[in-house]
Amino acid sequence: MSPRIPRRQFVSTAASAAAFSALPFGGRSVFARQSAAATPAGGPWNEQGILHLKHSPHAKLKNVPVHAVTIQEGFWASRRTANVERSIPSMGKLLDTNGRMDNFLRLTGKSDAPQRGPVYSDSDIYKWLEAVGFALQTQNRPELRAHTDAIIKEVVAAQQPDGYLNTYYVRERADQRMTAKTQQWGHELYNMGHMLQGATAYYRATGDQTMLNSGARFVNEFLLPMYGPEPNKKPLMSGHPEMEMALVELYRMTGDKRQLALAEYLLRGDERIPLKKNDYVYHFCGKPFTSRTHLEGHAVRAMYACCGATDYYLETGDAAYWKTLGVLWDDLISSQMYITGGVGARSDGEAFGNSYELPNSQAYGESCAAIGNMMWNWRMLAATGDARYADVIERALYNGINSGMSLSGTLYCYRNPLSFDPATDEKIRNDWYDTTCCPPNLERTFASLPGYFYSTSGDGLYVHLFHNSELNWRLENGAPIKVTQRTEYPWKGTVEIEVSPASPAEFAVYLRVPGWARRSDVSVNGKPVSGVATGGYVPIRRRWAAGDSVKMQLDMAPQVLEANVRVVENNGRAAVQRGPLVYCLEGLDQKSGVSLNDVTLAAAADGGFTESFEKDLLEGVIVLRHDGAAVQTSASRKALYFPANTTPNKSSKISLTFIPYYAWNNRQPTEMLVWTPLLRS
Amino acid sequence: MSPRIPRRQFVSTAASAAAFSALPFGGRSVFARQSAAATPAGGPWNEQGILHLKHSPHAKLKNVPVHAVTIQEGFWASRRTANVERSIPSMGKLLDTNGRMDNFLRLTGKSDAPQRGPVYSDSDIYKWLEAVGFALQTQNRPELRAHTDAIIKEVVAAQQPDGYLNTYYVRERADQRMTAKTQQWGHELYNMGHMLQGATAYYRATGDQTMLNSGARFVNEFLLPMYGPEPNKKPLMSGHPEMEMALVELYRMTGDKRQLALAEYLLRGDERIPLKKNDYVYHFCGKPFTSRTHLEGHAVRAMYACCGATDYYLETGDAAYWKTLGVLWDDLISSQMYITGGVGARSDGEAFGNSYELPNSQAYGESCAAIGNMMWNWRMLAATGDARYADVIERALYNGINSGMSLSGTLYCYRNPLSFDPATDEKIRNDWYDTTCCPPNLERTFASLPGYFYSTSGDGLYVHLFHNSELNWRLENGAPIKVTQRTEYPWKGTVEIEVSPASPAEFAVYLRVPGWARRSDVSVNGKPVSGVATGGYVPIRRRWAAGDSVKMQLDMAPQVLEANVRVVENNGRAAVQRGPLVYCLEGLDQKSGVSLNDVTLAAAADGGFTESFEKDLLEGVIVLRHDGAAVQTSASRKALYFPANTTPNKSSKISLTFIPYYAWNNRQPTEMLVWTPLLRS
Repeated sequence: MSPRIPRRQFVSTAASAAAFSALPFGGRSVFARQSAAATPAGGPWNEQGILHLKHSPHAKLKNVPVHAVTIQEGFWASRRTANVERSIPSMGKLLDTNGRMDNFLRLTGKSDAPQRGPVYSDSDIYKWLEAVGFALQTQNRPELRAHTDAIIKEVVAAQQPDGYLNTYYVRERADQRMTAKTQQWGHELYNMGHMLQGATAYYRATGDQTMLNSGARFVNEFLLPMYGPEPNKKPLMSGHPEMEMALVELYRMTGDKRQLALAEYLLRGDERIPLKKNDYVYHFCGKPFTSRTHLEGHAVRAMYACCGATDYYLETGDAAYWKTLGVLWDDLISSQMYITGGVGARSDGEAFGNSYELPNSQAYGESCAAIGNMMWNWRMLAATGDARYADVIERALYNGINSGMSLSGTLYCYRNPLSFDPATDEKIRNDWYDTTCCPPNLERTFASLPGYFYSTSGDGLYVHLFHNSELNWRLENGAPIKVTQRTEYPWKGTVEIEVSPASPAEFAVYLRVPGWARRSDVSVNGKPVSGVATGGYVPIRRRWAAGDSVKMQLDMAPQVLEANVRVVENNGRAAVQRGPLVYCLEGLDQKSGVSLNDVTLAAAADGGFTESFEKDLLEGVIVLRHDGAAVQTSASRKALYFPANTTPNKSSKISLTFIPYYAWNNRQPTEMLVWTPLLRS
Repeated sequence: MSPRIPRRQFVSTAASAAAFSALPFGGRSVFARQSAAATPAGGPWNEQGILHLKHSPHAKLKNVPVHAVTIQEGFWASRRTANVERSIPSMGKLLDTNGRMDNFLRLTGKSDAPQRGPVYSDSDIYKWLEAVGFALQTQNRPELRAHTDAIIKEVVAAQQPDGYLNTYYVRERADQRMTAKTQQWGHELYNMGHMLQGATAYYRATGDQTMLNSGARFVNEFLLPMYGPEPNKKPLMSGHPEMEMALVELYRMTGDKRQLALAEYLLRGDERIPLKKNDYVYHFCGKPFTSRTHLEGHAVRAMYACCGATDYYLETGDAAYWKTLGVLWDDLISSQMYITGGVGARSDGEAFGNSYELPNSQAYGESCAAIGNMMWNWRMLAATGDARYADVIERALYNGINSGMSLSGTLYCYRNPLSFDPATDEKIRNDWYDTTCCPPNLERTFASLPGYFYSTSGDGLYVHLFHNSELNWRLENGAPIKVTQRTEYPWKGTVEIEVSPASPAEFAVYLRVPGWARRSDVSVNGKPVSGVATGGYVPIRRRWAAGDSVKMQLDMAPQVLEANVRVVENNGRAAVQRGPLVYCLEGLDQKSGVSLNDVTLAAAADGGFTESFEKDLLEGVIVLRHDGAAVQTSASRKALYFPANTTPNKSSKISLTFIPYYAWNNRQPTEMLVWTPLLRS
C-alpha cells in the first residue's frame, strides 16, 4: 500500500478516537497506580503525538498525533513508501538472520543459538519496533501488526521475574548484571530506554500495552525499588543516555512522579559511581547535566542527554536545566554543527570535536547523531515556539538524516561525510552493520515524520514543515480543524495552506518562514501580510473560516554560503544551498576526466545557477548547473609542498552540475564534494 | 661532562681499535657459529656505526662509527647535553618508579610487585638501554656504565631456560605466550627487536656482549628451532614490525644467514596466521611486504616495516623489495608527510590517513613515527647515495623529531600537531606516558646523532649534515681522514669544512646541498665549484691534502611555502621555512589580544621577513618578523555559516613574530600555528 493514498478513514479526528477506547488494556497495566477503570493520566493513547506534552506545564507547543497528519504526494512520499515497504521489512529480516531475536528466544528455551551481537543488540529490535509503531500510527497493515505482536510476545517473555530484561547480561554473564562497570559500558538502561520508546510508539498505534507494561515493570519493579540516590539503594548511571527521555515520556502517560524523579537522578549522576574525566566527557552522563558547558564526547550520547534534559525541563521548568540547554545549543549552532545538520565530527569516539572542528571527508556525522539533533530541537521548539529550533530540524531532516538512507530504502549510512573519494575504497552505504543503530533509527524517524508538521498552542496552530498533506485534528480548545497544504516544496517555494475550522473561530496560525529564506511573501485569501521576516513564525491572528487560504512564496534562488574562518577545511570554499537542501557535486555528473579536486565555483555570488527538474534522476531532483572553472595545476604545484611564488595555475570554464546532498552515493562510487573552492582573482 | 669536549682520546681511529680486541667476549657468544678464536663476521665492535653495513653488498654508503664524530658547540650541543644529563637519567627513574624494572625483577624473585604497564613495557627499558648505548659510544661515563651493567644483568636473568624473554606473557599469562592472537597484539617480537637494538648499541659502546648474547639466544635457541615457514614449525608474525630490522642487524654481526631468512619470513608473512583486512592494514605485516602499494595503518609499524625491508634489500638486492620501497617512498613524499617530516595523520589507530589527509590541529604525527621516517630514509640513503633521502632525514630531525622533546629535556610530545589551541586543555608535553614509547625513542635518536653526519663510499666520503664537529675515521681503503666542520648552521648558511687526510690522496668528497636551498655557492680552497645544483651531493673529486678547505654558502632567506591543493586544511595558507627549520607562530609572541585565527601573511613572497637572533629566547633562536595583517571579522561572518556575499572583513597591518616550530610549547600554553592564511586581494 502506498502512503500516498490518504488514510483519512483510519484515525484522523478526535471523533473517531472513541472507537479505540474500548480496546482492553491487557495484563498488568502500566497505569496500575490509576484506578483501573479511570482514563489513564495521559489520556487516550491515540491522541498522543511523538511526545505527549498535553499536560506538560512548560511546553508552549503541544504535539499532534502522528495519525492526524496525512502526508500525500511529494518529496517525502517515496521515502516513506520505501521505509515501510522495503526498509522495515528488510531490516526485520536482517535482525532475524543476525540472531537479534534468537537472543530473546534462547532465554525462553526456544532457541539454542548463542548470544550474538554487541551489548546494545536488544536496542536494534526495540528501535525497529518503534519504527513499526510509528508506521502503524498512519497505516493499517494487519500482517505487519500480527507479525509484530508475535515479536513483542517473545520479547516480553524474556523478562525475568524481578523485572530485569536484557539478553546479554544473563546466564553466563549474569554476575556482571548492573554492576557499576556494566552500567558504564553495558547499555542496559540504553536498551530499556529504547524498549520503552518502542513500546510507547506501538501503544500509540494500537492501544496494545503488552510491551509498555513490560517496560514499566522494568522501571517500577526492578529499577525504582533497588536503585536511586537514597543510601539504602544502589547507584545508577545510564552510560549511554536514552533512558532519561524514555522515563519522562513514561511519566507523561502514567503521572507517576517517581519516574520523572528517576530521570532527573540519571541526569544528575551519582558520585557513588566514580568516573574518570574522559568517561564523563565520553558518556555525557554521570555528572550533573547542569554542570556541562559545551558539547563534547560521544555525539549520540550528548544529543540524547540533551533530549532527556529538555524533556525534564518541559515538566519542571527547572531554570538551571534551561540555562545549560541554552549554552549547549549556542555551542551547537555556533561551532559544532555541519551545514547538513549532522553533528559529531570525529570518528575517534564517534565524538564532538573541538569548536569549529568540522572536517569534511573525515566527518563522522553519524546518522543517529543527526537524528538526536532533530529530536533535541523538537523538544526545544516545544518549550519555546522559537523558529530557530525548527530551522535546525529542517536542516537535519532534509540533509544529514535524509542522506542516511539510500533511495532504495535498503542501504544505510553510518557516517555522513561531506566529501568523498572512492579511491579510499570505503563503502559508505551498507545494508547491515554489526552495530546497527542507525538503520532502525532512520526508519523510526521517517515513520514518525507526520508528527513533526504541526503543533498546537494555547492560541492556535503552528505550521513547521511543508508538504502536500492534510491535518485533521483539533485546536486546544477542542474545536476540530482541518488544514490542507498544497506545495511542491522543497523543489518549489510556493506553499498554499487551506485552513478549515469546523466552524468559524478566531485563533492564530503561526506560519514558519524558514531561516534560510532570503525573502518571503505571505498572503491570506490573496491579501498580503505585511512585515514578514524570515527565520520566524508569522503570526496570522484572525477569524478563520472553512476554505480560508494562506499562501507563502519563498525565494528559492540557490545560495552560496561560506563557513566561519575557524572551520579550516572550508577556508576559501563555499557550499550551495537551495531552499532547505544542501547541494553537492558528484564526480560522475561532471565533465569526463575532471576531478573534484580541481573544480572551483565562480567568485561568490548567488546568481549563476540554472535549475532543471530531472524526474528520472535520483527519483526526481532539481539539478543546479553553474559556470565554474576547472583548474589545470601547474607542474610545480603538483608537489606536496612548493614555493608560494611558483608558476600559478591556469583555469578554464566548465559547467558544474550539483545534486542535492541527500541523494549522493546512490549510483556508482564517485567523488563527492559539498564545500567547493571559490575561484579567487 | 659536556659533549662539547671532543673525545678524541676515546676511540677515534682504526689504529686504536686494536686496543679493544683483547676484551673477552663473556659467556655464550652471539658469534658461536664462528670459530671461537676468529674475529666475528661483523668485525670489531667499535668500528660499527648505527648500521653495520661494511659487508652489505647493496649498501652504496657505509656508516661511520658514532664515536668517530664529535659534535661540538652549536645547535645540537645543548640538546645532546640535556639528553644525557637530564632526559636519560630522569626517564631511567620514571621507568623504575613505574615498575618497568620490577617486571623483570619479579621473574627472578627479587620483587613482589605485580606486572605493570602495557604489553610493550619491556621495550621501554630496551629503548632506554639503546639510548644509553649510543650515549656511551661518544662519552665516557663510568657511573652510567656501571648502573646500566647492573640493569642488563637483571634483564638477562629474567630470560627463561628455553630462551624466551618477556615479562608479560609469563606466569599467570604463560598460556597466551606466542599464540597466534598474542603474536598479533602482544608485542613479544617487538619487545625483543628493541632488546636486540639496545644490546647492539650497548655492545658497540662497550664491547660487552651480555645483552647481545641474551638477545641472540632468543633468536637462535627459541625462535629459529620452533618457528618458521616449514610445516614442522609454528608460524610467526611480528604484529608490530621491529624485529625485522633487528634481525638483519644481528645477521650483519654474526653472518648467520638463518637470521636474515627469519627477517624475510617476517616481512613475507605466514598465511597460517589468518588476518582480517583491517589487521593487515593496521599491523603493516602479516602479508607480503612486496604486495604493499601505499602507506597505511599504524604509522610506526609501517615505518619500522619499511626499515626492515630496506635492511633486507641492502643485504640481498631483492628487486621486488626495492620496487615496493620506491612506491611507498613516493607515496610518503607526494601525499603523506607533514612539512615537519612527521607522518601518521590520524589519532584513530595512530595511523596514516588517506592521501593528502594531513590535518593540522588534529595531526597525530607521533614522535616515534617521525623517528621511524628518519630511520627508513637513512637506510634508503645507504642504498643509493641519493640526497632526496637525506633531505627527509634533515626535515624530520630538525622539526618533527626535534619538537618531540622539550628544551629542558624532561618533557616529551607523543603527538606533534601543527596548530594548537590551549582552549582544548590538551597537555602536549608530558614527562611520562603509560605508553612511553616516544621518550626513550627520542633519547636514542639524539644520542645516535653523530652517526648520521657522514658516510663512506667506495670512492670517498659523503657529508650529510652540518654542525661544528670533527670526524676522525678512515676512508674505505683504510686511509685515515679527519674532517672538521665550522658553521653556525642552521642559523647561518656558511659551512666551512676542512678535509685532512693523513696523507695526500685522490678521492671524492660528496657535499650535500640541501633540497630546500634556493641557491648555494661551493668553493674549494677559495675557488668556486661550477654547476652546483641544490638537492644533491656535489661531487668534489680531487687530490686532497691536509688543510684543504671547502666552503658552502647556502641562501638562508626565509621561504614561503604552499601545500598541494588536496591538503584541504592548507588551502589559502602558507608555511614559513628558513634553512631546514619550519617556523610557526605562537600566540604569546603576537600583539596582545590578537588570535592566531585572525592573522594572515602578506601575499605570498619570500621577502618581507626580518631576522634577529635572540640568545635568551628558547635557548637562542633566530626569530622572524613579518608585516602581516590582523583581520577584523565582520559581524555577519562570525556565524558558523553565512552568505558568501555578506559584508567583507577588514584587516589592518600587524607585525607577526615567528619562532622555529621545534621550540613551540616550551613556555606557557598559547595558540600555535604553522600554516598561516595568506591575505588574498
